[in-house]
Amino acid sequence: MIVDLICIGNELLTGLVNNTNAGYLARQLGSAGIAVRKCSVVADDVGAIKEAVTEALRRSDAAICTGGLGPTDDDLTREAISETLERPLQLHQGWLARLEAFFERRSYPMPPANRKQALLIEGSTILENPRGTAPGSIIEHEHKLLILLPGPPQELQPMFEEQVLPLLKARRQGQILLTKTLKCTGLGESLLEEKIKTLGQWKQPSLSLVAKGMEVLIQLKSYGEADRAEQLLEAAANKLRGALQGYLYGEDEQTLAGVVADLFVRRGLTLAVAESCSGGLLADTITGIPGSSRFFKGGAVTYSLDSKKLLPGLSEKLLQEHGAVSAATAEAMARGVRDLFQADAGIGITGIAGPDSDASGQPVGLVYVAASLGSSMEIQELNYTATRRAIKERAVQAALTMLWRRLSEG
Amino acid sequence: MIVDLICIGNELLTGLVNNTNAGYLARQLGSAGIAVRKCSVVADDVGAIKEAVTEALRRSDAAICTGGLGPTDDDLTREAISETLERPLQLHQGWLARLEAFFERRSYPMPPANRKQALLIEGSTILENPRGTAPGSIIEHEHKLLILLPGPPQELQPMFEEQVLPLLKARRQGQILLTKTLKCTGLGESLLEEKIKTLGQWKQPSLSLVAKGMEVLIQLKSYGEADRAEQLLEAAANKLRGALQGYLYGEDEQTLAGVVADLFVRRGLTLAVAESCSGGLLADTITGIPGSSRFFKGGAVTYSLDSKKLLPGLSEKLLQEHGAVSAATAEAMARGVRDLFQADAGIGITGIAGPDSDASGQPVGLVYVAASLGSSMEIQELNYTATRRAIKERAVQAALTMLWRRLSEG
Repeated sequence: MIVDLICIGNELLTGLVNNTNAGYLARQLGSAGIAVRKCSVVADDVGAIKEAVTEALRRSDAAICTGGLGPTDDDLTREAISETLERPLQLHQGWLARLEAFFERRSYPMPPANRKQALLIEGSTILENPRGTAPGSIIEHEHKLLILLPGPPQELQPMFEEQVLPLLKARRQGQILLTKTLKCTGLGESLLEEKIKTLGQWKQPSLSLVAKGMEVLIQLKSYGEADRAEQLLEAAANKLRGALQGYLYGEDEQTLAGVVADLFVRRGLTLAVAESCSGGLLADTITGIPGSSRFFKGGAVTYSLDSKKLLPGLSEKLLQEHGAVSAATAEAMARGVRDLFQADAGIGITGIAGPDSDASGQPVGLVYVAASLGSSMEIQELNYTATRRAIKERAVQAALTMLWRRLSEG
Repeated sequence: MIVDLICIGNELLTGLVNNTNAGYLARQLGSAGIAVRKCSVVADDVGAIKEAVTEALRRSDAAICTGGLGPTDDDLTREAISETLERPLQLHQGWLARLEAFFERRSYPMPPANRKQALLIEGSTILENPRGTAPGSIIEHEHKLLILLPGPPQELQPMFEEQVLPLLKARRQGQILLTKTLKCTGLGESLLEEKIKTLGQWKQPSLSLVAKGMEVLIQLKSYGEADRAEQLLEAAANKLRGALQGYLYGEDEQTLAGVVADLFVRRGLTLAVAESCSGGLLADTITGIPGSSRFFKGGAVTYSLDSKKLLPGLSEKLLQEHGAVSAATAEAMARGVRDLFQADAGIGITGIAGPDSDASGQPVGLVYVAASLGSSMEIQELNYTATRRAIKERAVQAALTMLWRRLSEG
């Protein structure tokens, strides 16, 4: 099964709002064995929408349209699809009643403009939207499917997973293309490629590598009848899981921070972090994981030289002898923050994120990361010329990788 | 002038890598009065590229293609364009020499595959790429322009701004559509809309609002001859600048954190932040600004209850009387972190980011933000039901808004 994605919205086309729906839908579809042929971003314009939908229905089995289902004059997706399919819009009494009840609960009269959100293409199946005022809909047209989804991700995502994906999966026929992503950290792309080559040929499933910061993503694609494709994919993934131990941290939607968080919780250990050049990004990444308060005690962002001395054990003398950006300082930060927060593990990150160096004249991109856990201490020196953001991300990735290795060692 | 964007790459179409180039190019083009008709994301596939380029050259004045210029077998943009235009590929001796020198400097023999990066469509103008091995190129074809750019943003962005945009601007003719974005904070979309309506009709330039977290973006679009369009745009922007004082913090590529950073530096003041539910996002946002070490002393991420007591003035008694999520605690955090880091200003953020509440049973989304500067103290209570990430972002935005108001007051 092959689909086209059509993302509708002036704000997407002008770059005012980032288009996160396309990537989300592509990943969801891929892991269900449904391939995306093309993704088009078009304006809130009847002609543009019509053209994209016509092409999609000619070339693919289904078209998924996002956005343009709001109540304002700009929202033209309904009208454009009605014109394209030459099928009229009909008022859905049930949805109209829901809209009225929705506004009544808010003690606010329903604006007349919202009435058009209850208009559906004739013959549509409605998709419930408990989180918003725009329903989704599915239209069957000359053996093809047209699926309309509201633009806001918090409405689109549950609607897609609960009401659309099962239906698409059930319609898959014959050969499908299944994808799976294995995620590795702590080993460069070319070294990883060499390791993988020693395991044999990768034709079916096929294999490709994508470097992403300090991570390398391995994408497996398996083509065939659903059962067979799944079997081959799983066998290949197993081979890689065995061979890449110590590097392969997770799969598909898993993140390194999420995997590290699980390990901390499972082992009943706690963490504190001291950050200089990463400036809070490590703490932010960890606290992005729901439930992180179960293991994360807190952090210190010691951005100025003086503030580093707030950490126990980080003396004026040590800073003068070794410099703020040094292995010794990173080590003392990891130990110091661990003591200060009374945590089982501590991270220290110090470096030069640029764009300019500091008074020491050390190169931009030089970063020391130290991880203290139990009686062990590991220190890494990174040298990485890149943008400020990329240097921060690398430092965070290195810290999480050190924690992951140590905690998963058993 | 109207262009099509064509982003080429399997990794984009499968959602493995986020497509940041489309938004970047759209914003750059928009502020130069060049409209994007459509953006297509297609696979590394000769047929798919050919189809998108053919449509673009038929419908727009120019097509900008990104990606697919690497050395691997997957990289097929050159071949596809050559087929589409029926113009052969030619070896560019100068670029080949540069490639060889590039690898020689790294004491590494040039892989044979890289040779194809020196292939250009016959009649191309080469675009220099000091940051990578793939040159860009511009091809004039039947009075239309075809522009090929490498995919990595750190290579694409300077190449576009320095070598492509000036050329596109020079080719603009007749009527153009200029866009400008004014960025507001601290006032909701509907209240802002009311304020703007009192200023009169917005037909030319036209005006639209987009809410983005706690910000509202005002997009002005002005259509006409370049000079006239610019004049009208500037007059409209001026009217808004005057009427929206206290809310309008910046324009186009400016960020609230960047504007706040400038104010701190200009006034010679320093800042420290204490974060609970925002978990380091405020510190990360501030340290994302180059040169932030000139005013940012550091931060404390006091995620556990105990860790809050590391801040001077935050006693067991206060926490017990008022609770960890309270106006009193936020205030004490702002004061305490300011004292601890000896800064001129302090921020305290405490709240419940969810997905679950804490032992207190207070609702998810309840956040207190306190800002202490000089002898002033401001405390805000936020109530905002949303995802964990969105709650963190709102808290950070509220803190930056409070600092911005206070610092820009004079």
